[in-house]
Amino acid sequence: MKVTIVKVHVKSEFIEEFIQATKINHKNSVQESGNLRFDVLQSPQDKSQFILYEAYDSEESAKAHKTTPHYITWRDTVADWMASAREGMPYEGLLPEISSE
Amino acid sequence: MKVTIVKVHVKSEFIEEFIQATKINHKNSVQESGNLRFDVLQSPQDKSQFILYEAYDSEESAKAHKTTPHYITWRDTVADWMASAREGMPYEGLLPEISSE
Repeated sequence: MKVTIVKVHVKSEFIEEFIQATKINHKNSVQESGNLRFDVLQSPQDKSQFILYEAYDSEESAKAHKTTPHYITWRDTVADWMASAREGMPYEGLLPEISSE
Repeated sequence: MKVTIVKVHVKSEFIEEFIQATKINHKNSVQESGNLRFDVLQSPQDKSQFILYEAYDSEESAKAHKTTPHYITWRDTVADWMASAREGMPYEGLLPEISSE
Protein backbone atom coordinates (compact mmCIF):
# COMPACT_ATOMS: atom_id res chain seq x y z
CA MET A 1 0.00 0.00 0.00
CA LYS A 2 1.49 3.31 -1.10
CA VAL A 3 0.28 6.16 1.10
CA THR A 4 0.66 9.92 0.77
CA ILE A 5 -0.25 12.20 3.65
CA VAL A 6 -0.86 15.65 2.18
CA LYS A 7 -0.96 18.67 4.49
CA VAL A 8 -3.23 21.40 3.16
CA HIS A 9 -3.49 24.88 4.66
CA VAL A 10 -6.49 26.74 3.24
CA LYS A 11 -7.13 30.49 3.41
CA SER A 12 -9.79 30.80 6.10
CA GLU A 13 -12.29 32.59 3.82
CA PHE A 14 -12.29 29.63 1.41
CA ILE A 15 -12.75 26.72 3.84
CA GLU A 16 -16.30 25.91 2.69
CA GLU A 17 -15.44 26.21 -1.00
CA PHE A 18 -12.43 23.96 -0.44
CA ILE A 19 -14.56 21.29 1.25
CA GLN A 20 -17.10 21.36 -1.59
CA ALA A 21 -14.44 21.07 -4.31
CA THR A 22 -12.68 18.31 -2.37
CA LYS A 23 -15.94 16.33 -2.02
CA ILE A 24 -16.10 16.05 -5.82
CA ASN A 25 -12.45 14.98 -5.99
CA HIS A 26 -13.01 12.44 -3.20
CA LYS A 27 -16.10 10.96 -4.84
CA ASN A 28 -14.22 10.36 -8.09
CA SER A 29 -10.90 9.35 -6.54
CA VAL A 30 -12.37 6.47 -4.52
CA GLN A 31 -13.63 5.05 -7.81
CA GLU A 32 -10.14 4.83 -9.34
CA SER A 33 -9.19 1.17 -9.78
CA GLY A 34 -6.09 1.21 -7.54
CA ASN A 35 -7.48 3.49 -4.84
CA LEU A 36 -7.66 2.07 -1.31
CA ARG A 37 -8.36 5.21 0.74
CA PHE A 38 -8.99 8.86 0.05
CA ASP A 39 -9.80 10.33 3.45
CA VAL A 40 -10.27 14.05 3.98
CA LEU A 41 -9.54 15.26 7.52
CA GLN A 42 -9.92 18.64 9.20
CA SER A 43 -8.14 19.79 12.32
CA PRO A 44 -10.64 20.60 15.08
CA GLN A 45 -8.11 23.06 16.55
CA ASP A 46 -7.61 25.01 13.31
CA LYS A 47 -10.31 24.48 10.72
CA SER A 48 -8.09 25.85 7.95
CA GLN A 49 -5.77 22.82 8.32
CA PHE A 50 -6.67 19.71 6.35
CA ILE A 51 -5.08 16.34 5.66
CA LEU A 52 -5.66 14.28 2.53
CA TYR A 53 -4.86 10.64 3.28
CA GLU A 54 -4.46 8.87 -0.05
CA ALA A 55 -3.64 5.17 -0.38
CA TYR A 56 -3.13 3.20 -3.58
CA ASP A 57 -2.24 -0.37 -4.40
CA SER A 58 0.90 0.66 -6.33
CA GLU A 59 3.11 3.61 -7.27
CA GLU A 60 1.59 3.46 -10.75
CA SER A 61 -1.96 3.87 -9.41
CA ALA A 62 -0.83 6.76 -7.18
CA LYS A 63 0.83 8.48 -10.15
CA ALA A 64 -2.18 7.84 -12.39
CA HIS A 65 -4.37 9.77 -9.91
CA LYS A 66 -2.52 12.97 -10.83
CA THR A 67 -3.46 12.55 -14.49
CA THR A 68 -7.21 12.18 -13.91
CA PRO A 69 -9.60 14.94 -14.98
CA HIS A 70 -11.05 15.17 -11.44
CA TYR A 71 -7.61 15.65 -9.87
CA ILE A 72 -6.61 18.29 -12.43
CA THR A 73 -9.92 20.13 -12.00
CA TRP A 74 -9.54 20.04 -8.22
CA ARG A 75 -5.90 21.21 -8.34
CA ASP A 76 -6.79 24.17 -10.55
CA THR A 77 -9.97 25.01 -8.61
CA VAL A 78 -8.27 25.14 -5.20
CA ALA A 79 -5.02 26.79 -6.36
CA ASP A 80 -5.94 30.31 -5.25
CA TRP A 81 -7.39 29.08 -1.95
CA MET A 82 -4.10 27.70 -0.60
CA ALA A 83 -2.56 29.65 2.31
CA SER A 84 0.75 27.86 1.65
CA ALA A 85 2.10 25.18 -0.68
CA ARG A 86 0.75 21.68 -0.06
CA GLU A 87 3.20 19.22 1.50
CA GLY A 88 2.94 15.55 0.52
CA MET A 89 4.76 12.95 2.62
CA PRO A 90 5.11 9.46 1.10
CA TYR A 91 4.85 6.34 3.25
CA GLU A 92 5.03 2.62 2.75
CA GLY A 93 1.85 1.05 4.13
CA LEU A 94 2.95 -2.02 6.12
CA LEU A 95 -0.48 -2.90 7.54
CA PRO A 96 -3.05 -3.87 6.46
CA GLU A 97 -1.02 -6.16 4.21
CA ILE A 98 -2.14 -5.30 0.70
CA SER A 99 0.24 -6.39 -2.02
CA SER A 100 1.88 -3.53 -3.91
CA GLU A 101 2.80 -4.31 -7.49
CA MET B 1 -15.06 9.52 11.67
CA LYS B 2 -12.63 10.36 14.47
CA VAL B 3 -9.02 10.04 13.29
CA THR B 4 -5.76 10.14 15.19
CA ILE B 5 -2.46 10.37 13.33
CA VAL B 6 0.24 9.13 15.68
CA LYS B 7 3.90 9.86 14.89
CA VAL B 8 6.20 7.17 16.24
CA HIS B 9 9.99 7.42 16.27
CA VAL B 10 11.56 4.05 17.06
CA LYS B 11 15.15 3.42 18.16
CA SER B 12 16.78 2.02 15.03
CA GLU B 13 17.91 -1.21 16.70
CA PHE B 14 14.30 -2.10 17.57
CA ILE B 15 12.58 -1.47 14.22
CA GLU B 16 11.87 -5.16 13.52
CA GLU B 17 10.66 -5.83 17.07
CA PHE B 18 8.40 -2.78 16.84
CA ILE B 19 6.86 -3.99 13.56
CA GLN B 20 6.20 -7.45 15.02
CA ALA B 21 4.56 -6.07 18.19
CA THR B 22 2.53 -3.61 16.14
CA LYS B 23 1.27 -6.40 13.85
CA ILE B 24 -0.40 -8.03 16.86
CA ASN B 25 -1.92 -4.71 17.96
CA HIS B 26 -3.14 -4.05 14.39
CA LYS B 27 -4.71 -7.50 14.04
CA ASN B 28 -6.71 -7.04 17.24
CA SER B 29 -7.50 -3.34 16.78
CA VAL B 30 -9.20 -3.80 13.40
CA GLN B 31 -11.57 -6.23 15.13
CA GLU B 32 -12.80 -3.60 17.63
CA SER B 33 -16.43 -2.80 16.92
CA GLY B 34 -15.97 0.92 16.20
CA ASN B 35 -12.70 0.63 14.31
CA LEU B 36 -12.65 1.91 10.71
CA ARG B 37 -8.92 1.96 9.99
CA PHE B 38 -5.73 1.02 11.76
CA ASP B 39 -3.01 1.58 9.19
CA VAL B 40 0.67 1.25 10.03
CA LEU B 41 3.00 3.27 7.80
CA GLN B 42 6.78 3.48 7.59
CA SER B 43 8.77 6.33 6.07
CA PRO B 44 10.89 5.08 3.15
CA GLN B 45 13.36 7.92 3.84
CA ASP B 46 13.86 7.05 7.51
CA LYS B 47 12.76 3.55 8.45
CA SER B 48 12.71 4.47 12.15
CA GLN B 49 9.75 6.83 11.53
CA PHE B 50 6.27 5.31 11.62
CA ILE B 51 2.72 6.60 11.47
CA LEU B 52 -0.26 4.90 13.06
CA TYR B 53 -3.43 6.04 11.30
CA GLU B 54 -6.35 5.15 13.55
CA ALA B 55 -9.99 5.88 12.66
CA TYR B 56 -13.04 5.14 14.78
CA ASP B 57 -16.76 5.76 14.38
CA SER B 58 -16.94 7.84 17.57
CA GLU B 59 -14.88 9.41 20.36
CA GLU B 60 -16.10 6.65 22.65
CA SER B 61 -14.76 3.91 20.36
CA ALA B 62 -11.43 5.74 20.05
CA LYS B 63 -11.17 6.04 23.84
CA ALA B 64 -12.21 2.40 24.35
CA HIS B 65 -9.22 1.31 22.22
CA LYS B 66 -6.87 2.56 24.94
CA THR B 67 -8.49 0.27 27.49
CA THR B 68 -8.13 -2.94 25.45
CA PRO B 69 -5.67 -5.63 26.55
CA HIS B 70 -3.96 -5.58 23.13
CA TYR B 71 -3.37 -1.82 23.29
CA ILE B 72 -2.03 -1.99 26.85
CA THR B 73 0.24 -4.92 25.99
CA TRP B 74 1.53 -3.08 22.91
CA ARG B 75 2.09 0.17 24.84
CA ASP B 76 4.10 -1.60 27.52
CA THR B 77 6.00 -3.78 25.04
CA VAL B 78 7.17 -0.89 22.86
CA ALA B 79 7.83 1.60 25.67
CA ASP B 80 11.60 1.10 25.79
CA TRP B 81 11.90 1.11 21.99
CA MET B 82 10.70 4.69 21.55
CA ALA B 83 13.37 7.19 20.44
CA SER B 84 11.04 10.01 21.52
CA ALA B 85 7.55 10.43 22.94
CA ARG B 86 4.74 9.54 20.53
CA GLU B 87 2.73 12.48 19.17
CA GLY B 88 -0.96 11.97 18.45
CA MET B 89 -2.82 14.54 16.36
CA PRO B 90 -6.63 14.36 16.39
CA TYR B 91 -8.67 15.06 13.26
CA GLU B 92 -12.29 15.15 12.26
CA GLY B 93 -12.79 12.83 9.30
CA LEU B 94 -15.02 14.70 6.84
CA LEU B 95 -14.84 12.15 4.03
CA PRO B 96 -15.82 9.41 3.58
CA GLU B 97 -19.03 10.45 5.32
CA ILE B 98 -19.41 8.01 8.19
CA SER B 99 -21.71 9.16 10.95
CA SER B 100 -19.99 9.86 14.25
CA GLU B 101 -22.17 9.43 17.29
